[in-house]
Amino acid sequence: MTPTHIEHIGIAVTSLEEAIPFYEKVLGLKCYAIEEVKDQKVKTAFFQVGQTKIELLESTDPEGPIGKFVEKTGGGMHHIAYAVEDVTEALKEAEEAGCQLIDKTPRNGAEGLKIAFLHPKSTNRVLTEICGKK
Amino acid sequence: MTPTHIEHIGIAVTSLEEAIPFYEKVLGLKCYAIEEVKDQKVKTAFFQVGQTKIELLESTDPEGPIGKFVEKTGGGMHHIAYAVEDVTEALKEAEEAGCQLIDKTPRNGAEGLKIAFLHPKSTNRVLTEICGKK
Repeated sequence: MTPTHIEHIGIAVTSLEEAIPFYEKVLGLKCYAIEEVKDQKVKTAFFQVGQTKIELLESTDPEGPIGKFVEKTGGGMHHIAYAVEDVTEALKEAEEAGCQLIDKTPRNGAEGLKIAFLHPKSTNRVLTEICGKK
Repeated sequence: MTPTHIEHIGIAVTSLEEAIPFYEKVLGLKCYAIEEVKDQKVKTAFFQVGQTKIELLESTDPEGPIGKFVEKTGGGMHHIAYAVEDVTEALKEAEEAGCQLIDKTPRNGAEGLKIAFLHPKSTNRVLTEICGKK
């Protein structure tokens, strides 16, 4: 796998409305999109910082992955997404290198990207996403 | 404040030796430096991904900040560092915007950078560092 950059950092928050002012007023970033990802049971808010996006995640369902994470932890940093050219190929390489996968094949994520998650058991407890155009 | 990019993502691990193979063998990154930061009671390992570094942090003292974090959580994503031109100026602007600070003035971090932390109370539970050359 050859990641080109950090595509985004996912941060779970209890409320987009309460969280966005820190990113806009303190850090001086601009929220350029709010998007619901029904599959993941979240509403997301995006900010660009250089090559990387900050992706705030507000749960739309307490039984969804972010809902459970926020209930357990109160919220905070949730995952890191590495950009690759070809997610299918990267998954194959990761598995060959002994990495446990959550997704054996890519699925559809926000902003039209293909995404897949590696398992935290193999990543020193950091939920790791890889994403790309194919 | 006008951050130019994500300078690094800090990840607490129980052991650099155990954590490095995931970054090298699965993600295909290269550990280009291992450095001890005595002030922070950690040993750090660095990997470059585009504009951003992954900074793995292994505690050298159970009473240090990373030692306590690992004891409480088992380790994982610890902080996000935003790159700015002038840390002193950025701190002043953050405080004026109502942000609570951990460091009122910059201190010395790894790789010769000036660093300062904002308080998680003001940042939706994400420990946030700003860093730069001055």
